[in-house]
Amino acid sequence: MSKELTSRKEDYSKWYNELVIKAGLAEHSAVRGCMVIKPYGFAIWEKMKAVLDARFKATGHVNAAFPLFIPKSFLSKEADHVEGFAKECAVVTHYRLKNAEDGSGVVVDPEARLEEELIVRPTSETIIWNTYKNWIQSYRDLPILINQWANVVRWEMRTRLFLRTAEFFWQEGHTAHATSEEANDEALLMLNEYANFMEQYMAVPVIKGRKTENERFAGAVETYTTESLMQDGKALQMGTSHFLGQNFAKAFDVQFQKKDGGLDYVWATSWGVSTRLMGALIMAHSDDDGLILPPKLAPIQVGIVPIYKTDEQAAAINEKVDEITKALAAEGITTKYDDDDSKRPGFKFAQFEMQGVPVRLGLGPRDLQNGTIEVARRDTKEKSSQSLDGIVDYVKNLLDEIQENIYNRAFEHRAAHTSTVDNYEDFKSVIKDKGGFVKVKWCGSNELEDKIKDETKATIRCILMDDESEGKCFYSGEAATQTVLFAKAY
Amino acid sequence: MSKELTSRKEDYSKWYNELVIKAGLAEHSAVRGCMVIKPYGFAIWEKMKAVLDARFKATGHVNAAFPLFIPKSFLSKEADHVEGFAKECAVVTHYRLKNAEDGSGVVVDPEARLEEELIVRPTSETIIWNTYKNWIQSYRDLPILINQWANVVRWEMRTRLFLRTAEFFWQEGHTAHATSEEANDEALLMLNEYANFMEQYMAVPVIKGRKTENERFAGAVETYTTESLMQDGKALQMGTSHFLGQNFAKAFDVQFQKKDGGLDYVWATSWGVSTRLMGALIMAHSDDDGLILPPKLAPIQVGIVPIYKTDEQAAAINEKVDEITKALAAEGITTKYDDDDSKRPGFKFAQFEMQGVPVRLGLGPRDLQNGTIEVARRDTKEKSSQSLDGIVDYVKNLLDEIQENIYNRAFEHRAAHTSTVDNYEDFKSVIKDKGGFVKVKWCGSNELEDKIKDETKATIRCILMDDESEGKCFYSGEAATQTVLFAKAY
Repeated sequence: MSKELTSRKEDYSKWYNELVIKAGLAEHSAVRGCMVIKPYGFAIWEKMKAVLDARFKATGHVNAAFPLFIPKSFLSKEADHVEGFAKECAVVTHYRLKNAEDGSGVVVDPEARLEEELIVRPTSETIIWNTYKNWIQSYRDLPILINQWANVVRWEMRTRLFLRTAEFFWQEGHTAHATSEEANDEALLMLNEYANFMEQYMAVPVIKGRKTENERFAGAVETYTTESLMQDGKALQMGTSHFLGQNFAKAFDVQFQKKDGGLDYVWATSWGVSTRLMGALIMAHSDDDGLILPPKLAPIQVGIVPIYKTDEQAAAINEKVDEITKALAAEGITTKYDDDDSKRPGFKFAQFEMQGVPVRLGLGPRDLQNGTIEVARRDTKEKSSQSLDGIVDYVKNLLDEIQENIYNRAFEHRAAHTSTVDNYEDFKSVIKDKGGFVKVKWCGSNELEDKIKDETKATIRCILMDDESEGKCFYSGEAATQTVLFAKAY
Repeated sequence: MSKELTSRKEDYSKWYNELVIKAGLAEHSAVRGCMVIKPYGFAIWEKMKAVLDARFKATGHVNAAFPLFIPKSFLSKEADHVEGFAKECAVVTHYRLKNAEDGSGVVVDPEARLEEELIVRPTSETIIWNTYKNWIQSYRDLPILINQWANVVRWEMRTRLFLRTAEFFWQEGHTAHATSEEANDEALLMLNEYANFMEQYMAVPVIKGRKTENERFAGAVETYTTESLMQDGKALQMGTSHFLGQNFAKAFDVQFQKKDGGLDYVWATSWGVSTRLMGALIMAHSDDDGLILPPKLAPIQVGIVPIYKTDEQAAAINEKVDEITKALAAEGITTKYDDDDSKRPGFKFAQFEMQGVPVRLGLGPRDLQNGTIEVARRDTKEKSSQSLDGIVDYVKNLLDEIQENIYNRAFEHRAAHTSTVDNYEDFKSVIKDKGGFVKVKWCGSNELEDKIKDETKATIRCILMDDESEGKCFYSGEAATQTVLFAKAY
C-alpha cells in the first residue's frame, strides 16, 4: 500500500478521490457511473445501516420491498415529480437478447420490445403510492409506516465515488397518514432521527432547516434537510425528509374513509439517506495520512501490532495480545491483530492510519518486561505508554474521547466557518475567500436566489427552523421573512 | 380478514397462492412478474438473512456491493454462461426520457441511446470476475471470500410469488482461490452451511447432492444442491453452491503468481439462496388454516389475546399480560398483544393462525381467578390450560418442541414419499400416482434423462453424494455409476 496522499491543502478533491481508493472503501466499476463498494467500505455502511434500521424500528417503522422497475407512465402522474426525475434515468426497453447472426456475441432481440418501457427506480414514491392505493380504504388502515433499503439509479453525468453515482444505495421511508399534522410531525420526527444519528454516530454536526422552493424535492410541499460543512468549507446535504401533502395521493387517487365520515386524500411523507453519507463521513474528519473514523462506526476499533525479533518474543506477545483481544471483545470492542510477518511494523502503522482505525496498540518485548503497551490515537496522533493493567478501561474511555473529540473538532470548524453578513459585497468576499456557511436575512425571492447562484455559485442550503426574522434582506433590502444559510455545496 | 383458504387437497397450487396473499406476505405489483414483499413477509426474510449473514461472517466471508448493471459483452465471455443467462433478461438501452411533443407524458429520448446495452444482472459472476481481475496478482491476494445481498432480474414468463419472480432477492457468494481443492472445499462448506440453516432454522429437511450436467449452473464444473420435498410430493431446489473451476478466470483473464512460481488461473466458487426459500418455508409446513412458521424464524413467536367483557376485567388482564410480555422478552421471545377492541377474540385467533404464530395465549377473568392461562400451539392446534406460574418456561420449551415437531413432520413426510424402484414401469406409476422422490440406480446418460423428462415430467433432482453405485441402471439396464433422486419439481 502506497501511503502518499495528495494533501488536502494542495487539492482537496484529489485527496478525497485518492483516499477512497487507498483506504479500500470503493472503486469505479466497468459500468459508467456505478461503483463497487469494497468490503472495508461496505463494513462501515453496514454499521450505519444497523444503527439507522434499529432507530426506524424503535419509532414504529417496518421494512418491506417494492419493485426495482417503475412503468414509464407512473412517473408522469405527479407533475413536479416527472420534471425532477424522469429526465436522467435508466430505461429498460427490451426483455431478451439473442445470438448475433454473425456469431459476434449477443444482440438485443427486436421482437422482445416491452409494450411500456420500465424505468429503473430513481426513487419509489410512484410505485409505492400505486400500491398503497390497494392497501388503504379507511382511517383504520392508517398510518402506514414503511421503510425500504434499496438500490436506485439516477443517470448522473459527472460522478464521484459515494457523493454522486449512477447507482447508489439508500433507505427510503414512505408513510401514509390521516391528517396533515400527523404527516408533518412524522417528517420532522425522521429529520430529528437523522440529525441525532449524524451527530451521535457519525460525529458530524448538522444544521436542520427547510429547503427553499427551488431546492425542494420534486413533488414535496416541504423538504426538511440536514446540512453539514466539510473541511474545505463546502456544504453537504446529508439527508432529507419530505412532507408530501396530498400530492401523491391525488396523483394515484388514494382516498380513505375518515373517522368522522366523508372521504379525503391520504397525507404522505418520504425520507431518505444514502451511501452519500459515506462521502460525508470520509470528508468530515480525515487528514493527509488517511481516514479518521468515529469509533462508533469503525469496523476495526483497535488495531494491534506486534514488534519483535525472535520467535520466542513473538510467542510471548501473541499470548498477551490474545488476552487483551478477548478482554476487549468482552466489552464489545472490535480488534484486528496484524501478525503478518511479511510486513514491517511501520507499514502496519501506516495501514491502520490509512484505514482510520481509532486506536492502535503496539506491543514489544520491552513493553512486556515493563508491563506497558504503546497506545496511539488516530485523531490527534498522540502516542503514550500505558500500563497493561487496566488497558481495557483505558481503551474504552479513549474510544469515547475520540468520538467526542472529532465531533468537537468538526463543530469548531463549522463555527469558525459560519459568517453572518448584511450586504452583498461582504457576502461575495466571504464566499470567495473564506467559504463556509454564510448566514443572512432573506426576503424569500426565488429569482434573486437564482441570480446569486449564477453570480457566486452559492445556494441556499436551508432556511433556519423557527426563525421569526425581522430586519432587511441582505440583498434586496426588502423586508426579510427568513434567516437562511448560503454556501457552495457538493 | 377472510379466513377461508382453498384446501391443499382441493388445489395445492391455489392454496399456496391464496395463503401468500391472506397471510400478508407478498403480492403482485403493477410491474409484470415483480412482487411487493409486504412487511410481515419481509420480517421473515430479514430473520433468515440475519442468521445466514452471521454464518457467512463466522466462516470468514465479508460483504460488498457490485453494480446492478452488466455490460452486454460481458455475458458473452463465458460460453455456457451466456446460453444460460443472456436470453431472458431486462435490457437497458437508453438513459434519458423527454417530454412527448403532444404533451401526453414522457417518451424515450432517441438521442440518449447507450453505446453498449446494459443488462440488469441475472447473476453477477461476470461483473465480479471482471473486478477481481484488478484485485488479484499473487497468491497473497487469495483467497477472496465475498458475499453480496442483492436484487437480480430474470425475465420469467410464468411467475409465482416467491417461487419464481422476475425480480428476486438473494445473496450470492463469489470466492477466489489458489487451488482447485480449496475452491471445491469452499463450495462444499457453503453447501453444508445452507443445509444446516434449512434444517435447523427453517425446519425443512434437505438432501445434499450434485446436479447432473443437464441441470448444472451455466458456467459451473460442478453444482452442489440442497433439495427438499413439499407436501404435494413435488421437489424444490433450495439453494445451490457451484465449483466454477477456472472458467470465469479464463473468460476474464484472471491469473495469479503462484507461491512456488509460475502463473495460473484462479479457481472460483459461487453460491446463493434467494427469496425462493420463503416459498419453501410456506409450503413445507402450512395447513388449510394458514401459515405454520418455525419458531426460530417467526417474527411473532407468541400471540396474546385478552378475553373480557368489562373495562375492569380488561385492566386486570392488561396488567398481567404486560408482566408476561416483559418476562418473555427477557428470554428473547417476541410477542404481539392484540388488544384491539373492535375485533372479537375468535377473529384474532384466526388471524394469528393465518399468520403462523407458533404459540397463542388467551387470558380471561376466570384464568386470572384460577391463576391459569390458555395455551394453543399452532402446529398441532392442541389447546391446554397452564399455570401462570412458570408460563415463561413452559412457552420457551413449547417453542423448542414446535421447532422440532415440524421438522420431524416434514422428515416423516419425506420418508413416506421416497420410493426406491428398479424398473421404469414402477417408476412411472410412482411418479404418476404417489409423487415424491424416486431413488434409482443410474447409468449417467444425458439423453435418457431428457427422454424420461419428456415422458414423465420428472427430472433428476440430484446425484447422491459419496455413493459408489453398483448394479444396473433402472432404465437402460447398463452398468449403473450413480444413485440419483428423480422427482417432479417446482
